[in-house]
Amino acid sequence: MNASQRPLLSQASRPLTVEIPAINEHGETVPTAIAGEHPLTLYVDKREIVTLMTLGAAPEALTIGWLRNQRLVRSLDEIASVQVDWEVDAVSVTTRNGLRDADEKLGSRTVTTGCGQGTVFGGLMDEIDQVRLPHDRLLKQSTLYALMEAVRHHESIYKQAGAVHGCALAQATPGGCEILMFFEDVGRHNAVDAIAGQMWLDGLEGADKIFYTTGRLTSEMVIKTAQMGIPFLVSRSGLTHMGWQIAQNIGLTMVGRAQGKHHLLFTGADRFVRD
Amino acid sequence: MNASQRPLLSQASRPLTVEIPAINEHGETVPTAIAGEHPLTLYVDKREIVTLMTLGAAPEALTIGWLRNQRLVRSLDEIASVQVDWEVDAVSVTTRNGLRDADEKLGSRTVTTGCGQGTVFGGLMDEIDQVRLPHDRLLKQSTLYALMEAVRHHESIYKQAGAVHGCALAQATPGGCEILMFFEDVGRHNAVDAIAGQMWLDGLEGADKIFYTTGRLTSEMVIKTAQMGIPFLVSRSGLTHMGWQIAQNIGLTMVGRAQGKHHLLFTGADRFVRD
Repeated sequence: MNASQRPLLSQASRPLTVEIPAINEHGETVPTAIAGEHPLTLYVDKREIVTLMTLGAAPEALTIGWLRNQRLVRSLDEIASVQVDWEVDAVSVTTRNGLRDADEKLGSRTVTTGCGQGTVFGGLMDEIDQVRLPHDRLLKQSTLYALMEAVRHHESIYKQAGAVHGCALAQATPGGCEILMFFEDVGRHNAVDAIAGQMWLDGLEGADKIFYTTGRLTSEMVIKTAQMGIPFLVSRSGLTHMGWQIAQNIGLTMVGRAQGKHHLLFTGADRFVRD
Repeated sequence: MNASQRPLLSQASRPLTVEIPAINEHGETVPTAIAGEHPLTLYVDKREIVTLMTLGAAPEALTIGWLRNQRLVRSLDEIASVQVDWEVDAVSVTTRNGLRDADEKLGSRTVTTGCGQGTVFGGLMDEIDQVRLPHDRLLKQSTLYALMEAVRHHESIYKQAGAVHGCALAQATPGGCEILMFFEDVGRHNAVDAIAGQMWLDGLEGADKIFYTTGRLTSEMVIKTAQMGIPFLVSRSGLTHMGWQIAQNIGLTMVGRAQGKHHLLFTGADRFVRD
């Protein structure tokens, strides 16, 4: 994509934590850092689409990734500009040729599982069958362990304030595993969307990547990982039956309950190498 | 409410966990219980409203509570019947006089924070200022400790399969604290809604109750607790800035990071008694 096609972006990150006084079990007042949470109303070509509740760390990437994961935009060059204005808690997106199938897709809503994307407008579920994940990619157990170690150093806001979910995009290196980007948000679905948006902005493909989430492996997490073309999904949490079924159907390699040296390989064992 | 006004309910609970084979870090195949997750499309008077992803433990209470918390129904007697049919993953609600402000409310959507209610249609946020919580109710620290102890025995699915959130409705007793109902779901917002629905079905008021959640104290959890008229919100997790601001504004007594003997009192200290 040439420079002229890159969207114009604001850089409107919010302070991520706030310190409040809390009273502990002994009656002592202790300063406590808590995570920010802000409404962000998304307008596309002046049409109000949805309001997202977000930490506000990466609102531009979040907006682009949300549109991408909703399949409302198929490539970054469809977006002319993304301008966040916290004065009015709004982000204004201008497209080059309008949203595709907007009316049709915005017509039907799915409220997905808990920490999953709050709302999935029509289309996403339908298209999952068309996803093809590369089968020539492998995940070494040593790479997985390196990822676990790398992730431990990234959950800054969680360690500080809790109440956020983290997602990481990682890649195996000769020596181990490198985290390319790490997003945290009060909504896990926001962290996923922010990664999807940043992948577009950085021109990254998913085939050789590993997606890590602190959250649960629900149907919607599996679908989004696959939609991003990423064959590996790793979580320190558990899994739902529907997430497992979809991961099996599309041949995603999914590892859950990954903490330190422990993990459970749920699906896609053909891509996993114990070394 | 006389019996004739009580809605006709199906009793369509789904199996809560499924056992799948997983491969652990040593390459051993271990049978692993995972939580169910099912789409449930909600029709009201034959109009499709939304699709919820749920564990399926209490779909009727979930449906009623969802309509209640969306402020689409103001009292149980507005609902004539709630019929769940898992053959088609649908729940059909028949109202006595139609949904109020349906078009207006279904027109605007808010995707709330992560584990929060996936979608809040218009209205909920607007009405929070009208909420009045009783100030003559008190929460003793000993009651809080009794609640923590009682909760430990209820998270059956979580202990078995993880990947679910739990919510409890509790009440102080002379001796300690009694859990009146406990719901788990793959979506925490579902567990909250199921409690709201069951409170209506059981004719329970919120003023003398304590609401417990395993999940985070986001704006939407605070709003829903207040909308149910419950002055006490307890969580073992952290909170967000917006959750804190709203709890302060409406005078909710909110305790977070509650685990064993530890807890942090965030707001509404006037109702908390250290005994």
